[in-house]
Amino acid sequence: MKLKELAKLVSGKVVGNGDVIIRGAAPIDEANRRDIVFVLNEKFLSSAIESKAAALVASTNDKVRSKSAILVGNPRLAMAQILAQFAPRGFFFPGIHKTAIVPKSCKIGKGVTIGPYTVLEEKVIIGAGSIIYPQVYIGRETRIGKNCIIHSGARVGTDGFGYVQQAGKHIKIPQIGIVLIEDNVEIYANVCVARATLGATIIGQGTKIDNLSHVAHNCKIGKDCAVVSLVGFAGSVTLKDRVYVAGQVGFKGHTTIGEDSIVMARAGVSKDFPARSILSGFPAQDHRKEMALQASLRRLAKKANPGP
Amino acid sequence: MKLKELAKLVSGKVVGNGDVIIRGAAPIDEANRRDIVFVLNEKFLSSAIESKAAALVASTNDKVRSKSAILVGNPRLAMAQILAQFAPRGFFFPGIHKTAIVPKSCKIGKGVTIGPYTVLEEKVIIGAGSIIYPQVYIGRETRIGKNCIIHSGARVGTDGFGYVQQAGKHIKIPQIGIVLIEDNVEIYANVCVARATLGATIIGQGTKIDNLSHVAHNCKIGKDCAVVSLVGFAGSVTLKDRVYVAGQVGFKGHTTIGEDSIVMARAGVSKDFPARSILSGFPAQDHRKEMALQASLRRLAKKANPGP
Amino acid sequence: MKLKELAKLVSGKVVGNGDVIIRGAAPIDEANRRDIVFVLNEKFLSSAIESKAAALVASTNDKVRSKSAILVGNPRLAMAQILAQFAPRGFFFPGIHKTAIVPKSCKIGKGVTIGPYTVLEEKVIIGAGSIIYPQVYIGRETRIGKNCIIHSGARVGTDGFGYVQQAGKHIKIPQIGIVLIEDNVEIYANVCVARATLGATIIGQGTKIDNLSHVAHNCKIGKDCAVVSLVGFAGSVTLKDRVYVAGQVGFKGHTTIGEDSIVMARAGVSKDFPARSILSGFPAQDHRKEMALQASLRRLAKKANPGP
Repeated sequence: MKLKELAKLVSGKVVGNGDVIIRGAAPIDEANRRDIVFVLNEKFLSSAIESKAAALVASTNDKVRSKSAILVGNPRLAMAQILAQFAPRGFFFPGIHKTAIVPKSCKIGKGVTIGPYTVLEEKVIIGAGSIIYPQVYIGRETRIGKNCIIHSGARVGTDGFGYVQQAGKHIKIPQIGIVLIEDNVEIYANVCVARATLGATIIGQGTKIDNLSHVAHNCKIGKDCAVVSLVGFAGSVTLKDRVYVAGQVGFKGHTTIGEDSIVMARAGVSKDFPARSILSGFPAQDHRKEMALQASLRRLAKKANPGP
Repeated sequence: MKLKELAKLVSGKVVGNGDVIIRGAAPIDEANRRDIVFVLNEKFLSSAIESKAAALVASTNDKVRSKSAILVGNPRLAMAQILAQFAPRGFFFPGIHKTAIVPKSCKIGKGVTIGPYTVLEEKVIIGAGSIIYPQVYIGRETRIGKNCIIHSGARVGTDGFGYVQQAGKHIKIPQIGIVLIEDNVEIYANVCVARATLGATIIGQGTKIDNLSHVAHNCKIGKDCAVVSLVGFAGSVTLKDRVYVAGQVGFKGHTTIGEDSIVMARAGVSKDFPARSILSGFPAQDHRKEMALQASLRRLAKKANPGP
Repeated sequence: MKLKELAKLVSGKVVGNGDVIIRGAAPIDEANRRDIVFVLNEKFLSSAIESKAAALVASTNDKVRSKSAILVGNPRLAMAQILAQFAPRGFFFPGIHKTAIVPKSCKIGKGVTIGPYTVLEEKVIIGAGSIIYPQVYIGRETRIGKNCIIHSGARVGTDGFGYVQQAGKHIKIPQIGIVLIEDNVEIYANVCVARATLGATIIGQGTKIDNLSHVAHNCKIGKDCAVVSLVGFAGSVTLKDRVYVAGQVGFKGHTTIGEDSIVMARAGVSKDFPARSILSGFPAQDHRKEMALQASLRRLAKKANPGP
């Protein structure tokens, strides 16, 4: 594609030669003379200009003179749009693969892809346009919305971990609830989402959950949340909308986090927090308080042991 | 079923109309007029009474007048028994699925279910009544007891992580031991249990291990333990019987935890502890000591920086 | 095999009867009279001597009189070499299993094993002698070097977790990069390695990554590293060569750790560190500093609350 065509796609302004041909996209330090590169942070501007790349995408605030460029308000958004041009067309396993197990009681929407060796149990519903990668497991009566993506090895709708003690033994509590995944959700590789004991475990519209995270029974994850990898939600946790959860965070059961909150990496959340909280530490608290606590403790320790 | 039939099943006492028909079970706030609901905590009693539910199950200590009910000594146990009535009959994939790979050298007990795309290596033994879900991997010579449940994506009997250093390289130590899973064990989705280097990695009778946990080579997990999700056991850890391990806990290699202990969420266990320990923190210590330590540190920090 | 034959194999010195027949290897406390046992730590020497084992392997520094033995400089290395004699010959699923999905655009080297229900996307390259276990997923254009081992349930080359925010929604950034795994790498069960957004996620030659770890997009893991289980690498982390990472460690995105470093269990790495660092704590720092900090805090807390 010509640079000016890409510029049009992203509603950007061309600097330099709009007729230069772009064949691909690359990291700045690996680009060749047919590639476009992306300046997502001003500190990489000069190395982008000095790179072999044919052109770059930068912010309208950046000063680009000696190289062809597209200037946009949001270079990261432009990157998403431009990479979509260079991504492989279509999906490797279009349609329902012959090895996928899809009982007749399932309802599969239009344009759904189900990869090889994926197994659906009875009465699963999958909305139009969803992509279920290979080797996924989806338990009975799970409902998946439109345009969802479920990556390889995800387990959705397996039993919740529920027992009652009797004479020192664990008696299994049958898990008769379901998992409900709303539209535009993306569940990454090897993530586990357990069915509810009663009712539904819910993943809200537009939410994304990264590799190897665990969502226990009866959690209600809000809309447009992002949950990074190796996060653990104990049972019946509620995240309101647009909560961001960083890696290796853990949530105690039955806690609720208000909307637009941020839970920083490795925090351990043990109680409820209101909307717009920024949390860190274990037990998690307001991030500024946690920072102040840690700084204060470090000062006290240093004072007690000034060292060499 | 009629309420009085369910009451008989759980050896409970009927209050109100024992002839009311129950069609299902639901969370209190989602129940409709054919559902039964469960009051596992007295604080939910009034909302259960006010719910649309046909009837409720509560403790014999609870005062229920205005609604039909079953009163029992242990409502959670009654829930397990009643939900078993409403759970789907049979298993979706009864028997050994035609796509399951089961070498002739394996011994499969009576009534065993092995789901689609599950792979057994040579000489695996599976006890009567066990259910192996789809897409499970079971390495050679693994022995699984009676009435076990292994959920989708579990990997049992893969190699332990064993190397010896030579000239800066990792030389693999062949892992020739096995995994031995005793009766009534439940292993959840995507759990990994590594085979022993020599001898056996053991999961004791009645133990349950939740999603995405890792049991390294040569661990000996006792009987009737419960291990929650994302827990990591390094090599040769010993849990004695009836130990409860909460989420995201980690164990250093070669540590031993005495029976009837509790390891609280996110603890890092770095040494041995005796029976009936209650542990938290990193390095884990007696929970009361850890609480006292953290409280003391918070007081010191506050005193040094009283804040606004 | 005769003891003297095993001794020759490991270049060791025979003590006692070199003609004793060895049929297997076992843990010291489980050995029978045809087994050989390994004394990897001098404190187990006396129990090895008193065991039922036919013979033992010990260090040349150990004093072994009353039992047949092989004495070597490095008993752990000798164990690796001797166990290779007792490990099952060949692989259970030699060659490319008929149920493995291998598109024609893939290039598969000589002597490669690909297990049942493993799925490769287009244009995957696998080097000679590699073993891909059952139920693995390998995304398009992934390159795997020679003599690699990829265990069951690993997901290599799935999408990186990349989004741009627009009006409160997560817009997916297409992930058009690849994963490059060099020679002699071993990836354990259920590990996830995400493809790069642009360029490549790299796992260096000789590196081993244990169960349930997560390597995000654009990480560059060096050569001969060892990464234990449940470790999380955020995007664009760089480990230089020969770094050891213990269990449940987490790395913040874009951090770099110098060569020959050690990151201790459960550390949270939030910034760059130079070569030969030994790190612990969260935020991770030099291990001696962290130990001093923790010791100092414990002393302060005790002083403030001397207790009973």
